[in-house]
Amino acid sequence: MTTRATQQLETAEEAVRQANIEFYRAFAALDLDRMHAVWLHEDWVECVHPGWDLLLGWEDVRASWARIFSSTERVRIEISSVLVRMEGAVAWVSCREHVMTAFAKDFSEAHLQATNIFVRRELPAEVGGGERWFLVTHHASPLPPGRPASLQ
Amino acid sequence: MTTRATQQLETAEEAVRQANIEFYRAFAALDLDRMHAVWLHEDWVECVHPGWDLLLGWEDVRASWARIFSSTERVRIEISSVLVRMEGAVAWVSCREHVMTAFAKDFSEAHLQATNIFVRRELPAEVGGGERWFLVTHHASPLPPGRPASLQ
Repeated sequence: MTTRATQQLETAEEAVRQANIEFYRAFAALDLDRMHAVWLHEDWVECVHPGWDLLLGWEDVRASWARIFSSTERVRIEISSVLVRMEGAVAWVSCREHVMTAFAKDFSEAHLQATNIFVRRELPAEVGGGERWFLVTHHASPLPPGRPASLQ
Repeated sequence: MTTRATQQLETAEEAVRQANIEFYRAFAALDLDRMHAVWLHEDWVECVHPGWDLLLGWEDVRASWARIFSSTERVRIEISSVLVRMEGAVAWVSCREHVMTAFAKDFSEAHLQATNIFVRRELPAEVGGGERWFLVTHHASPLPPGRPASLQ
């Protein structure tokens, strides 16, 4: 691969990494508007929260984040072991999530494995054009118990 | 979309569906050679068995199937709620798995949600050329307990 092609790939991969980080920042900020901007708003986007049934379509996915955010006082998320693959206008990211959540009267901690799929879309000229990566699938599930996954 | 374009999309989607079915047939047959043919053999393919850590690269993924197959007497798998999305040479499939497993001295039943990612690759001229979809990511995790997911 030429140096130029390698640089382009690294730049594109960095854009996917940033889109993935922004998803977790929106989650940690309990900010529905920010989460709104992260996802593609289509009836085929998919979300599997740990131990939940699959949610299909942006309406249901949005409602799930609204429900999670409204029942959460505070959340801290650390991601690690981030792996990015891209092919054309599709990218998929795997990462570990260490999620510490404070509810009104409770506290929980979870170590999860996530698969996140992004697609690249052109932005409308009204917002300046260009391209951006949008989340279309989030699948998170519990890691084996008893391992400090986030310390690796 | 023209009728021709719709037909092409349906044919391509059907090829992905068949690749997904072949993955589960290889699993149900406990056939490592068949599983070998389903996956892309790269060091970046990923597999998350329910409650396992992520396995990275075909060598580790292959070893996990060898281990599962060697400890399993018989397995029956039903898949349902199959959703296919494609974009360029990447496709992702979500489905529910109802896995009934007979071990040497035990029996287990699991309802799982899976996200499977496939990529399309050209086949070498020696084997007749053409294209095929290869599995590059399998992420399966438990569905909520107490629901007969496979009966939907």
